[in-house]
Parts: sequence; C-alpha cells; structure tokens
Amino acid sequence: MAEHAIALSSRVRLARNYGEIPFPAGMSAANAARVAEKVMGSLAGCSGLEPIHKVNMAELSAVARQELVERHMISTELANKDEGFLVEILNGQICLMVNEEDHLRIQAILPGLELGRAMDLANKVDDVLEEGGYAFDGRLGYLTACPTNTGTGMRASVMLHLPALTMLSQMGPIIRTVSRIGLTVRGQYGEGSEASGNLYQLSNQITLGRNESEILHLLGESAIQVIAKEAEARRELLNKNALSLEDRLMRSYGIFKNARRMDVKEFMQRISDIRLAADLGFLDLAQRELDTLLLAAQPAAIQRRLGPEASKEEIDFERAKLIRRSLA
Amino acid sequence: MAEHAIALSSRVRLARNYGEIPFPAGMSAANAARVAEKVMGSLAGCSGLEPIHKVNMAELSAVARQELVERHMISTELANKDEGFLVEILNGQICLMVNEEDHLRIQAILPGLELGRAMDLANKVDDVLEEGGYAFDGRLGYLTACPTNTGTGMRASVMLHLPALTMLSQMGPIIRTVSRIGLTVRGQYGEGSEASGNLYQLSNQITLGRNESEILHLLGESAIQVIAKEAEARRELLNKNALSLEDRLMRSYGIFKNARRMDVKEFMQRISDIRLAADLGFLDLAQRELDTLLLAAQPAAIQRRLGPEASKEEIDFERAKLIRRSLA
Repeated sequence: MAEHAIALSSRVRLARNYGEIPFPAGMSAANAARVAEKVMGSLAGCSGLEPIHKVNMAELSAVARQELVERHMISTELANKDEGFLVEILNGQICLMVNEEDHLRIQAILPGLELGRAMDLANKVDDVLEEGGYAFDGRLGYLTACPTNTGTGMRASVMLHLPALTMLSQMGPIIRTVSRIGLTVRGQYGEGSEASGNLYQLSNQITLGRNESEILHLLGESAIQVIAKEAEARRELLNKNALSLEDRLMRSYGIFKNARRMDVKEFMQRISDIRLAADLGFLDLAQRELDTLLLAAQPAAIQRRLGPEASKEEIDFERAKLIRRSLA
Repeated sequence: MAEHAIALSSRVRLARNYGEIPFPAGMSAANAARVAEKVMGSLAGCSGLEPIHKVNMAELSAVARQELVERHMISTELANKDEGFLVEILNGQICLMVNEEDHLRIQAILPGLELGRAMDLANKVDDVLEEGGYAFDGRLGYLTACPTNTGTGMRASVMLHLPALTMLSQMGPIIRTVSRIGLTVRGQYGEGSEASGNLYQLSNQITLGRNESEILHLLGESAIQVIAKEAEARRELLNKNALSLEDRLMRSYGIFKNARRMDVKEFMQRISDIRLAADLGFLDLAQRELDTLLLAAQPAAIQRRLGPEASKEEIDFERAKLIRRSLA
C-alpha cells in the first residue's frame, strides 16, 4: 500500500496571459495568431524541452479532441476552440494549452505524489515563455481572464484513488474538512464531474494572497493525510473481514475479465476494484497496465479507433475485448 | 449441442424382495442378515460383474453416508438405515441398495441417454439375484413394500440439464404435459427436491399395467422431445441476442472462477451457466471436468474432507478453492 498506489498523479497548472493582447474570449484570428507566434517562437529558441509537438484543435475531429480531454491533456474548453492548440512537451509531462480561457495554460503532469517536481517543470516552461511579456500587476500578481485564477495563476492537484474511504462513506467529512483550509475535492475530470471509479482530484481553491510554495505545501500535506486515511480505511476493511473483501473484489475481477460488453460507468467501478485488489496483494497486476487500460477504454479513445459510425453497443463490446486483451 | 450434453445420465432401478423374508420396515437383525447372505452369496457365485464393493451403512459416518446420497449412489432412506448396505458393482455402473424400503433396489446408472443399456445392466444383476427367490405374483408382478412400485418394480429416469427452458419459463407447461402421459419431472435428488442448477429428473410415475419396454420406450421418446425443446430454446436465446447471452454466461464464469467463497445454491446455478456456456461453444471446457466438480463441491463431500468441525463458512471457502483448482 505504497503512497504512489493511492496518489495516481500530480499536476501543476499555471495561467498566464501576454500583456499586449486581449484575453482569448472573443479573440480575433489575428490576435490568436500573434499568441501562437510568440509561444512557438519562445519554445523554438530554447533547448532541454524536446520533444515538442504542436496539435491544432482545428485539425482534429470532435472525437480526437475528446480523447485528449479523456487523457487529461486538454480541457473541454480548449477542445471547443478552433483557434486553440496544445503543445505537448517532454512526452506529455508538459501539456501547454494555448488560447484556452487564458493565452497560456502551462500544465505539468507527473505520476505519483510529485507536486514539487511538477512545479519545477512548469516553472521551467514558464521561464521560457515569460520573454513574451506577461500581464502582471505588482499587487495582484498574474492577471487572468477569470478573477479566481488571478494572483499566482497556479492551480495544483493530486489525483487520488480512494475506494476504501468511499466504501466506508467517509468522503463527505473529508470533503468538508479540506474545504475549510481552501482546498477542494472533485471528480477526476475536474469541476462538476462525478468521482467515477473512486478517483478524486484534490486541488487548491485559492490562487490569491498566498505564494506558490505555501499552496503546494498545504496541498501536499493534505494529500499525505488523505492517503493515510485511505490506508487506514483499507486496514479497517481488512480487519473487519478480509475474506469478504477479497471475495467481493475478486468476483469483480472475474466479471471484468470475462464480460462480453461493458459500459464506461461499470468499467470505472470495476477497474477501481481491481486496482484495490492489486494494491492489497490479492492480484498480481502491474499498476502501469491498469493506467494504460484506464485511458484506452474511455469512450472517445474507442470511438476514434472504431470510427464515427460505431454504436454505443459496439463500443461497449470493444471495451470488453480490450480488457481481455490487456489482462491476458 | 449434442443430446448427451443435455441428458447427463440415465438410470434404471428395479425394486425386488425375497419371498420368504418380511419387507424391511421393522425388520429383525436376523432377517436383515439373511437378506445380506442371499445377496452376497448370489453375487459371489457369478462372474462378469467385478469389481464388487460392499459398503455397510453402519460403518459410515453421517457425512460419509450423505456424500453417497449426493453422488446419487444411495437414497436418503438407505443412509438412515444401519442394517442397510450398498453393493457397488462395475465401478458404480450398478449401485445395489440392500435393506432399503425393499430388500433390493438394483440401480444401473450410465452417462448420457442410455436407458436401454441401463436396463440391460440392471437385468443382468436381476438375473443373478433372482435365484434367491423373489416375491412375485402372477397377476400383480413383483411385490414391493410400497404399492406404487408393484408390477414391474421398475423406475427409470433421465437427468436433464434444462437451463434455456428454465430461463424462458417453459418448464411449467412441460411438467404438465409429461404428467398426462404418466411421467413426472422432479429436482435432481428425486421426490420433493428442488431443481437446483436447472437439473431435472424425468421419470416414469407408473410401474403397474405396462411392461418394462413400453415404459422405457415412452420415457426415452419423451426425453428426446424435451431435449429437442431445450435445444430449440437455446437457439431462440441465441437468435434473440447471442451477445447478451454470452455476456451473461461469461460473467457468471468469471465470478465462478474468481470468487473466494461460494454457497452450494450459487454453485449449482453457476455450474449450470458454465455448462451451458461450454455447450454453446463460448467456453472450451470438458463436460467430464464439470461432472467431477459437480460432485466434489457438494456440501457433504467437502465436509468429509475438512472434518466434522468445519463451519459452513469454511466449506464455502473450500468450495471456491476447489473450483479454482479444477478450472486452472
């Protein structure tokens, strides 16, 4: 039950805007092009961030954009903007969204609980792009399209897998506790999304009036506490009736591995059961394989492979096939 | 979907009594011994029925007797009689019960739909034992303790696996139809037992006024008709939604193979699902393995191996282990 089995990934996102260009809402094509030029110019001039890969939303089908959302590489907002693009840096450790709500959203994403390293990565890109001239106010800090991001412009989050706390109905109190210290708990796709598959995003609510390292420290410490609570809840479940838990999880594994069709809601619940079974040593399965499957079996990922004519039933059938192949 | 996949076994049972000895109810120890002497004397004198193996109820624990009931080798009635014994002949193809309700119950049991061959086997033993002097009436035929057996003294049955007819709720009409022609449908353990695991015993109700070959012909023809109806019901399920059926059965298989505890009721339902899945080609599993498991996982069989202190929970746990080992 190592920490990294509960903390799936860490993410730091910096919102930045160029000083001389209006915020993206209602942006002209000319201004969008100016932003693009600045970004790509700065990146081209620096070394140590390769490989750099630009992906224009305008060139992607709706389903290909949705797949990037599923992979947490872009936001739904960027997916809906034809002038927006993604710059994937260092094999996806940095996903830079351009012309989203702000000109720049520098996202650093790392597996496990790695907020400090993620911040370092984001800062590295931030330092390179800063030469474009950011909108910055001495008192307020970085200016952003939405005032909730003003200040540090930073939002950091940790993706946590919390099946035992969910089973024991302890998520309610935890959500209330963290909200009192300026943090928030959301579903895996951020604001307004459901915590399907017992995946929760713990993130900072406040960007103004505290500096980055204070926020990261608070978030990191809170994540460690929530992880400890999850570990405790797992021990409680094991002490109460280990056989009953093993039976429940292994039955779920049996269904997962043998079903001939599975919708995404059931998939998310079962992959959570199986991750827990692997964490508890009931099953010998590499976490990496589950992580790969988690992305590959999402609706848009399957739809893109099958083509736009594929029905929901065909997607559910393909998902079950994918699971079998992945666990074979 | 061969016939033998639906007809699991055929059984012919002849009820016989010796003329000079009172029926077993309230029998003296001396008379019980006289019956035993006659039986073993006749069998010892003949060749072609080896191996012959005598099992005295008085020497068996309650759980060992119950295991023989589970294996369909003896009746509950014999299990409750200390003076009763079983003579297993030809590796269980003949299970001769002595001092049950009648002095002799000659049972021949063969896999598949083999009523004719089972009758031949029973007759062979009957011919050997007849020298003991049967109670026989020229008009009534063989005399038996219970008048419902008088006449031929024969009861024949076929064990049928009818999951599709059960799923489609068609067993009710079938039971009513066969009862009109003097046949009856019961659960797998005969009179009053439930049809757990979708196993049904089709047998003759009447022993008087018809000769053996008429009864066997009627039963055999009816079995063939029920088997055809089951095959038709399977086709209907496949035509309606093959994927849905495959999904349902394979999920059941996944649970079967991965559960960490399973009670006998669930076991019977799931082994039926798995047998059907194998019959329909969804799964590559030998019927013989399922037949072996079906017996090995019954409560008394497990209890005898674990010892009398084993709790129901331990038995359910052991059953799940047995399933995994058997399907590995």
